Amino acid sequence: MTEVVERKATNVHWHDGEVTRGDRAAMLGHKGVTMWFTGLSGSGKSTVAVAVEKALTARGVLTYRLDGDNIRLGINSNLGFSAEDRQENIRRVGEISKLFADTGVVVLSSFISPYAEDRAMVRKVHEEGDLPFMEVFVDCSLEAAESRDPKGLYKKARAGEIRGFTGIDDPYEAPVNAELHLRTDEMTLEQEVDAVIKSLQERGIIV
Amino acid sequence: MTEVVERKATNVHWHDGEVTRGDRAAMLGHKGVTMWFTGLSGSGKSTVAVAVEKALTARGVLTYRLDGDNIRLGINSNLGFSAEDRQENIRRVGEISKLFADTGVVVLSSFISPYAEDRAMVRKVHEEGDLPFMEVFVDCSLEAAESRDPKGLYKKARAGEIRGFTGIDDPYEAPVNAELHLRTDEMTLEQEVDAVIKSLQERGIIV
Repeated sequence: MTEVVERKATNVHWHDGEVTRGDRAAMLGHKGVTMWFTGLSGSGKSTVAVAVEKALTARGVLTYRLDGDNIRLGINSNLGFSAEDRQENIRRVGEISKLFADTGVVVLSSFISPYAEDRAMVRKVHEEGDLPFMEVFVDCSLEAAESRDPKGLYKKARAGEIRGFTGIDDPYEAPVNAELHLRTDEMTLEQEVDAVIKSLQERGIIV
Repeated sequence: MTEVVERKATNVHWHDGEVTRGDRAAMLGHKGVTMWFTGLSGSGKSTVAVAVEKALTARGVLTYRLDGDNIRLGINSNLGFSAEDRQENIRRVGEISKLFADTGVVVLSSFISPYAEDRAMVRKVHEEGDLPFMEVFVDCSLEAAESRDPKGLYKKARAGEIRGFTGIDDPYEAPVNAELHLRTDEMTLEQEVDAVIKSLQERGIIV
């Protein structure tokens, strides 16, 4: 019985000193943030995210990318492409991004995320957790995205082999209050990366 | 058109140099790992995880805790306590843990996770991703856990107010191949923390 009492007292002591978000930021030398890259398929989201990841890593900033590759094949493998499942896909990614931002990671989440309501939900989740959230509109014309067509998806959508494809027979609701607007058909990749880094510095996320 | 061609070439260059798990580990000075704390309600999972988090942070190891508090209220807020939902709860946490381990974080996931099959699933997901996974059996007798009853749940379960409660009217399948076995009714918290740190060192996760 004495053991239990002593243990309890010890618990209280340890719990008092729980590690905080600020402790992790101090260790890492930067804060965590969710950078949410939204845009048409082929707009250049992954390209920018990969380049930003490299630039940040070179600066010693812990960065991680979330995208269809590691989400759709993993945690969201039980979701399809119905309207309901698409919303749940974005909701889960938003919640995971929040955990990463809380850890102190600069998380780069690249998802078409065509609906303003879904993106607003993700923003709200971060605001409620007092965590930085930056919406990055990766913008290029439908014509430019379709001419790139890196995965051959526009061709399939035009041929009617894919239905509900964003930009073809499903709308893309462009952000109106994005923290950053990258015009990938007008800017070079280097300019885009510089713009992202600068925006992180201005917000005090990184030095 | 020239722009597009140049851009494509640039993309290839950047993609060639994608940041790897090894790059992140080198930056952090340690590897990522999922430490999965399983045990009865009241066995001391959270207490150990909180203490380990503090000890690792003091050593400069980036650590994050996943538990009911930040999972059930966040990403898994749409899950209940049916058998199916419980399994999905563990599956999602396993996938999230994997992403954190891939980032280079020592992630401490504390969940009763009473079924061996579910824990095996989480282990498999990590093995397939070539990521370290350590099952930590936070073990104490049902009597000891029930006498602690930090959340008053055993009392409710005994009164029939909660059904399917692990240890009372639902089984806890004790791990048979856990990497670490902590007897919280025999060890002090300090001994438990030391055992965890030592096991991380022996596996080359931390220095």
